Formats: sequence, structure tokens, C-alpha cells
Amino acid sequence: MSKLKDKKSLRIIPLGGLGEVGRNMMLLEYKGRILILDMGFRLPEESMPGIDYIIPNISYLKDKKENILGIVFTHGHYDHIGAVPYLIEKIWRPNLPIFASPLTRGIILKRQKDFPNQPPLRVEKVRDGSKIQLGPFKVEFFRMNHNIPDNLGLFIKTPVGNLLHTSDFKFDKNPVNEPPTNFKKLKDLGKRGVLLLISDSTGAEQEGHSLSEKEIFKNLDKIFSKAKGRIFVSTFASLINRIQQVITLSERYKRKVLIEGLSMKTNVEIARNLKYIRAKRGTLIKKKQLKNLADCRITVLCTGAQGEPEATLVKIANREHKILRFKKGDTVILSSSVIPGNERTVQIVKDNILRQGAKVFHYQMMDIHASGHARQEELKKMIDIIKPRFFLPIHGQYSMLVAHADLAKEMGIPEENIIVCENGQIINLTKKRISLLKEEVPAHYVMVDGLGIGDVGEIVLRDRKQLAKDGMFVIVVVVDRQSGRVRGSPDIISRGFIYLRESKKLLKETRKRIINIVHKATGSGGAVNWTYVKGEIKDKIGEFLYQKTQRRPMVLPVLIEV
Amino acid sequence: MSKLKDKKSLRIIPLGGLGEVGRNMMLLEYKGRILILDMGFRLPEESMPGIDYIIPNISYLKDKKENILGIVFTHGHYDHIGAVPYLIEKIWRPNLPIFASPLTRGIILKRQKDFPNQPPLRVEKVRDGSKIQLGPFKVEFFRMNHNIPDNLGLFIKTPVGNLLHTSDFKFDKNPVNEPPTNFKKLKDLGKRGVLLLISDSTGAEQEGHSLSEKEIFKNLDKIFSKAKGRIFVSTFASLINRIQQVITLSERYKRKVLIEGLSMKTNVEIARNLKYIRAKRGTLIKKKQLKNLADCRITVLCTGAQGEPEATLVKIANREHKILRFKKGDTVILSSSVIPGNERTVQIVKDNILRQGAKVFHYQMMDIHASGHARQEELKKMIDIIKPRFFLPIHGQYSMLVAHADLAKEMGIPEENIIVCENGQIINLTKKRISLLKEEVPAHYVMVDGLGIGDVGEIVLRDRKQLAKDGMFVIVVVVDRQSGRVRGSPDIISRGFIYLRESKKLLKETRKRIINIVHKATGSGGAVNWTYVKGEIKDKIGEFLYQKTQRRPMVLPVLIEV
Repeated sequence: MSKLKDKKSLRIIPLGGLGEVGRNMMLLEYKGRILILDMGFRLPEESMPGIDYIIPNISYLKDKKENILGIVFTHGHYDHIGAVPYLIEKIWRPNLPIFASPLTRGIILKRQKDFPNQPPLRVEKVRDGSKIQLGPFKVEFFRMNHNIPDNLGLFIKTPVGNLLHTSDFKFDKNPVNEPPTNFKKLKDLGKRGVLLLISDSTGAEQEGHSLSEKEIFKNLDKIFSKAKGRIFVSTFASLINRIQQVITLSERYKRKVLIEGLSMKTNVEIARNLKYIRAKRGTLIKKKQLKNLADCRITVLCTGAQGEPEATLVKIANREHKILRFKKGDTVILSSSVIPGNERTVQIVKDNILRQGAKVFHYQMMDIHASGHARQEELKKMIDIIKPRFFLPIHGQYSMLVAHADLAKEMGIPEENIIVCENGQIINLTKKRISLLKEEVPAHYVMVDGLGIGDVGEIVLRDRKQLAKDGMFVIVVVVDRQSGRVRGSPDIISRGFIYLRESKKLLKETRKRIINIVHKATGSGGAVNWTYVKGEIKDKIGEFLYQKTQRRPMVLPVLIEV
Repeated sequence: MSKLKDKKSLRIIPLGGLGEVGRNMMLLEYKGRILILDMGFRLPEESMPGIDYIIPNISYLKDKKENILGIVFTHGHYDHIGAVPYLIEKIWRPNLPIFASPLTRGIILKRQKDFPNQPPLRVEKVRDGSKIQLGPFKVEFFRMNHNIPDNLGLFIKTPVGNLLHTSDFKFDKNPVNEPPTNFKKLKDLGKRGVLLLISDSTGAEQEGHSLSEKEIFKNLDKIFSKAKGRIFVSTFASLINRIQQVITLSERYKRKVLIEGLSMKTNVEIARNLKYIRAKRGTLIKKKQLKNLADCRITVLCTGAQGEPEATLVKIANREHKILRFKKGDTVILSSSVIPGNERTVQIVKDNILRQGAKVFHYQMMDIHASGHARQEELKKMIDIIKPRFFLPIHGQYSMLVAHADLAKEMGIPEENIIVCENGQIINLTKKRISLLKEEVPAHYVMVDGLGIGDVGEIVLRDRKQLAKDGMFVIVVVVDRQSGRVRGSPDIISRGFIYLRESKKLLKETRKRIINIVHKATGSGGAVNWTYVKGEIKDKIGEFLYQKTQRRPMVLPVLIEV
């Protein structure tokens, strides 16, 4: 139905990042030719045990390899680049054009090395002011402040009109290590006429203006100036700017900095090589140098502010770290917000640090973390500067998209010019109209578990959840083919249900019931329907165990005829 | 060593509620005679799949039944009374003295009915001003504001001096349905001389003063006055005062109220019978009356503000409720804070409500929920009024106890007069000194899972977690006793690992390896060590599967000789 319409219209297809935080990926399609924006992953829900990541579903791109004009990355955070090693193979062809800023490029290429058998990516560097032409799309890159350097917004000239994609962003008049927001540039872009503004919604539910990194720096300085013992700062490995602040402050207060944790070390190395992090010679030290330094000369910069079990901070807190322990006199700074869902784990880490006598500062006590995302006043300002005809909120939970749409209405954009949509929906854009097509492309979760990509589905997850809740109960019955009698006693293998050793009576009664079920089936002497017998064991023993324990372990009968 | 000392000192033993939120229970022991304060439960951690509740460990009370003077309850929240049906049997004797305020008593006794074979509890009613003597302890009850009516603080005269136990509390000059805080009474108690103040720490990390219920009422009124369609209010079933507010507002705006959800219905019934909730005749309606009412005449009051999967709000949001669906024009009010750890689930519920077009108000948008716990300014005021010699912060995460101790220091209590301790530690109190004994009593978690109390331990939980992460892989091998050869092909039962149907190659290779391991062991012709063979299968097949998938399912071999 939409074939004719398609010819003159631009199709925008979000494959991730809408109605969720992370997994950002979007397609721009014009006359069948496709430009890809970002390829991120996200972390799994609690209801997905064992899953490492969720990545965008790219079924729609199957058999369209030749139609892909290229990939453009906005910045180097994993929710924008993390899916590359899992997906790139499926769409790669020699000389596939890929564009990223120098730091983003560095992070992408470094990560590729951790994955064997990846195709050889050629990523071209783009910068503030760079312009590239990819088929019908002309992309102009412009600098946007966020909490990683080298973040680029996209101004995209298309046959139907100009799009402006904000990337993740915040307005910051006093950022760290990079120039402040270039409002003049944004105004110029606005003046050129923007048909559609595609804007980051992550902060749309938060009032006011995001904190400037300068504020954070001031507060960190206060803590540094008062600390008499060692200082531990924990933050995201990807917050390059925060890492710089800690290094700068350590230098100011004559402290050396030990960087702990693989991801933190890797990121600092990449960023230093590209001169996005600056440290004086001798500031960064190795572990063995610690013992020669007084406590008041030591800063430890590490991961773990989210309570990640393998992170340095958590290991020290749990007294599992090889050489470091907290002690009275230490100052611990948790310089990051807590990702929703991690509150409990972070609380436990905090408690364990306090139990060892150290002092803890976290973002709920004072402003020692700033989000990288624009809040309501900034989002409105962006709309005001760009003055787009149409508006598409992206990046965020559904409630954030709705809140962002409300802000756009408040700024005078008519409701029918705003699209709040979900992953997999197709936005049809012409010079005069924005709308959702009835057709959709597949967008359901693709899960990464170990080496498997997409091989864990609903059934496996459902089984994992049942196993987690009440464990399993495997019953092995050997039946004599001749007599139909059970040989010996049925074997029972159970885990995660109850302590078998303390439940001998229950097991005895269970075995008796199993044997009865089998003998009832074989007793008549006719042919035995073993599938039926298995079903009987499953149902009846399951029910019996539930009656006795009110737990429902997964009952799995194995019948062996000999 | 402490035998002599004990004779003249009071021992205070927290069995729960310190270093955690919930599971409050404390013992006061003098010359071997024990008074119990509260018996609460708490919810499990994420790392405890399948567990329903955690309850206090009462091993210390074993064989001390006759020494228990009685149980005193402060208020009717489950973190103070929830463990009763699981623990009471172990310490009950006929005529065991139990004391609670009328509402607390009503909730305890109603709940007992859900548990068969419970001993017949006799709970005596106490009120503001009641005094009871239990052995060496004289307990005087006094009213304290919280967010459930009938909350009682305890002034306890003991041979070493007076204790003041705040219960959970907040200061509220404008509460709902009950008188404001009686500061005069508190001052009088303070003047009588308090040796030890035992005070609620839940709000100790929060600056300022808790919100008054009057503020909440005003904001709810604003929402009610503007709502044109149906109003759904979701809160904790235990927030009796909030429920009253919603009923009062509904009456003001000529709405009828449907109460949905078993726990909410039960609590409203108990509270109405005792006149703690007042509703005009005809205000509360049944489901079938809904269809006769215009949308603007309907309020639905239900549970689910924490995203609990079985709660009414969640079922409506997920389009699983029998008769109710959200629609454009509906107003949904989530009038509760989010319990740490539930943030993700609540976000999903919120998103799903918005997807159906309803408007959502939550506590981060405006003050439509007040905590029942005093914040820093109130806690300091309490210390100032009572002027205790010694101070013991209770109820809360370790970080809250530390923060509360810091407030006490700020108020002039010397550090050595403050005890921050953990469950199971023994506080030794004399007229002149407070200290921790070296000995401790057992305080590790006792978990409730279905009908089992304490029968799920670390090993079962560890197994559940492993099963959840990567599933299980049971291998059944039938070996011919004579020849030592494997009969047929080994059976493999796997769940939660991979889709077996899509992994035929992997399974084939696995079976081959299993047979090789068995044949290698039986090949020599001598006696076979089957335990060793099982170990080999477990290790080698486990390693093989990890290599191929980077997952570690629980490998469980079963060897059957025939």
C-alpha cells in the first residue's frame, strides 16, 4: 500500500533505544537505501538470568547488505557502539563506510580486538564540521557536550528536508576538557530549516537544568581538600571527563593516581593516546608503588560504583581484593548515579565500606555526579533554538518519551507533528507530514549469552526462571522390559529444591508413588504408553511435592527400559 | 567471663532490623529473663531466588521458653509483626503475655487465620498511656505518629535505668485521622531521665523534615480536582492513613471507591471495624456497580505501586485484569515511594500505563507520598527532647545507622556513649556504661520458602543461582555390567541452557565424548570407580560445553549399571 508513498518519503526506523534505556540504533531509508545511526547494546532485565546483553534486532537488514550506505556513530558509549562486534559481521562488506570521531573510533577498534574472527573494520574519522555524502544523505557533524568527549550531533540533509539528531547531549557552559556548548552553531543549523528534530529524552522527566561539570569539580575539590587519608573514587569507566577531573584534582593535592580495573585502564589508555585525558608524567602509578607513598598521597580510581560483582571497589568492600582493604581514615567517593535496579547492590557495597571504617560520599549527599543528559529546561531550549516542524523524541523509557513530547507541545509544536513510537515502527516523513506506517519491522529482543547471539529465547528464559525459583527434580526409573517392574529404587537428582539429606521421609514417599505410577501402567500387561507414564509422573509427583512443600521444582522423569 | 557482669547489667540483643530494612526484633534480657520487642519479616534479596521472606533467627531462645516474659508489638506493619506465624510456635506457651494496640492486634490475629495449626494467641490491648509490668520491666506505651494508626513508642523502666524505644516514627503537626505529635508527653518522658534512647534510623540519611500528611492531602486534592475521568490510586495496603485520604477526597469529589486487591481489602476491613478508617455509607462499592457510574464518579484504590506481579494495578497495566483496562482520560496516582530494588519493575508498569493513554502521577513528580520515618531534623529534635545518656540507632541499613550516630554526636552525645552494631551482637548496659560483649548470638538469615522455614540454605540458593544463569544438563548413561559398554545412546535432559533441537551437532559430539569417558574407565576390565567416572563426565563435559558456548550449565551425570 505504501509503495508509492515510500518513493517520495523518508522512512525512519528505530531498532532500539525507544521505550528502553540503551540499545540505540536507528535506520534512515530513502528509496531502499539505508543509513545506520549507532549500534548499541543494553543490559538485561532482572527477568533474564544469565543474559549478558540485549542487542538490536536487525532481521530487517537481512538481504539488504548492498543497500546499506554506511554507519555513522555519535559517540563512544556502549549503548551506542556496544553491539558492533555482535552485529557487524551480518551486514559487513569490504569498504562498508563507517564514520566516527577519533575517540569513538578508538574505543570501537580496541573492543574489536577482544572478539576473534571479526571483519577488518575501516572507520573514518569525522570531527566537528566534517561533512560526508552517503547516497541521498549529506551528514554534517557538530560537537555536542555529553559526559564523554568527542560526542557528535548529526545534521542530515535528505531529499525530504533536514533532520537534526542531537545524539545524547547536555548544555554545559563550563565543561571539563572541552569547549562549552556552541549555541551559535546550533542557531545557525536551526536557521537553515529543520524539518525533523530527533532528540535525546533521557532527562525529560527531570526538572530544571543539568549540573555543569564545573559544579561537580568544585564539590570534588572540597572533599579532596579535606581528606587526610587515601581517596578512592569510583565511577563509570566510560566517564572520561570525570576521570580527568580526578586526575587533575589529585595533581592539585599532590596525590598519585592508581587506576584499577580493566575497563577503566583500557579507556584511560585510549583516551590518553588521543590526548583526551592529560596527566603529568609520574601522576599515574603502578600497584607496587603504593607502598612507598603516604596515605595522603594516594588516589585510587576504580570501577564498582554500580555494585558490579567483579569491580575493584566491590572486591575491596567485600575484603576479596588481592592487596587493597578499606580502613579508618579512607575517603570513598561514589561519583556516579545508580542505574535503576542496582540500588540494592550499591547499598550493600556502601554498607560494607562503612563497616570497615571508611567515610563514604555519594551523589545523594552532595553533587559529585552530573548526568550527561539534558533536563527539561535544556530540552525546551533545544526545541526553541532549532524550531523544527516535526519532533521525534528518542533514547529513553516510554515515560521519558511521553514527557519529552509534552515539552514539545508546551513549546508550541502541534500534537500531530510529534511522534511517540516504539522500536520497529516505521516513521514516514515527507515535506508536509509525519506519520506511522501500519507495517512494522521485527524489533523483539536479541539476547547475547556467552558465545550465543539470539539462541536464548523465551522458553530457555522461562525454564531458567522456574529453575531459579524452586530448583529441579530429576527422576530416573529403570523398568524391566519383561516384567514391567521397576528395578531397584528410582534415582532422584535434585538441586535448588530442598536438602535431600534432610528430607528422607519425603523422598521415600516420593519413590513409592513413582513406582506405583509405573506399575499401574505396566500392570495390565499390554503395550505401555511411556509418554503418558512420564506425564503422569510429572503431574502427580509435581503436585505431591507442592502439597508437601508449596514449591514447584521442575520435575523431569527419565524412563529406561532394560 | 561476663557472668558476674551480666547479673547487674541489662543485655539488649537485636535479632533483626540492624544493617537491613525490615525483620525488626529485639530482646531485652535481665538476669536471664527476656522481653521480646516486635517480630517482623523482610523481603528477600535479589540473590535469593524463590525465597518468600527472611525472618529473625531465634536459635538463642531455644530452651528459654519459660524465661520469656512476653512480647510487645509497636505497630501493625509486617516488618514488625510479619514473622509471628513462622516463629510463635517455637516460643509459645499457654498464657504467654502478648501486647499490642487494637489495630496492631487486629492485623496480627487476622493474619494468624491464614496459617493452619497456629497456637491460640491471646493478645492484650494496650493504648497511649497503658502501663504493664513484665518481670523486671515496666513498659509504658505512648502514641507516636507514623503512617499507620495506633503506633506506640515504649518507655521501659528497667533495673539499670529507663529506655525509650521510638518505634518507627515521624513528627507530624498535621497528620490524617489522628492527633499530632504530643511533644509535651515526650518532654515529660525525657525529664524522667532516659538512660538509653533506641531510635528509628530509616530516615537518617535524608536532610530536613519529613513531609506532613497534610501536604500530601493538598497535592492529592489538586489532582482529584482536575481529573475528568476515572482515578486509580495505588499505594501500600498497609498505609491506612493514605487509604483514608483517598476515601475522603473521593467523597469530596462525589466519587465512589472500589477497593481492589486482597491485602488492601483485608486491611480496610480490619481498620473500618476498629474505626481507623471512616467512609460514608455507599462510598465503598463493589465491582458490579462500576458499570452504572460515569467515569468521573469512580475511584479505584489498589495495590501495585511497587510493581508486584500479582497486584491489581500491574494486572491492569499488563492487560491481564479481568474487567479493568486503562484508557485515555484516566488518571493514575502512584502514591508510594519505590522500595530500593523495585525501580525497574515500577518503570515498566508506568510505561505500560502510559502506552494505554492514561496520565500518571508519581512521587518524583510531586509530593503525593510521605515517608513514615523521621528525617535528620526530627531525629535531632528527638535526641534533644529526650536527652539520653546513651544512644542506640536501630531500624535501617548500616549506612543509616552510621548517619544516625553522626547526628547523635552532632547533638553532643559522646562517641563512646553511642553503639552502632549488628544483629546478634549483645549490648551490655549498666547505669554507667554501654558496651558490646565479645560473645554473639546466632543471627544469620532464616529463609521462608513455601511451607519450609529455614530449610533453604546457602547450598540450595547457590544451586538455584547457577541453574538460573546457565541451566542444567543431566546425562543418563546405561552401562552393561558384563561388557562395560554403554547401552544405546546417553540420555540428555537439559533445561535453561540452549535449545537442544537447534544444537544437534553439539549434542552428538557431547554424547561421543561421554561414551569415550565411560569406555576408557571400563576398558581395562578391572573394577570401575563409578564416582571417579561421574567426576570425569562432570568436569570434561562441563569444560567442553563451556568451550563451545561460554556457558556453564550444571552438569549432573547419572550412571546406571544393568
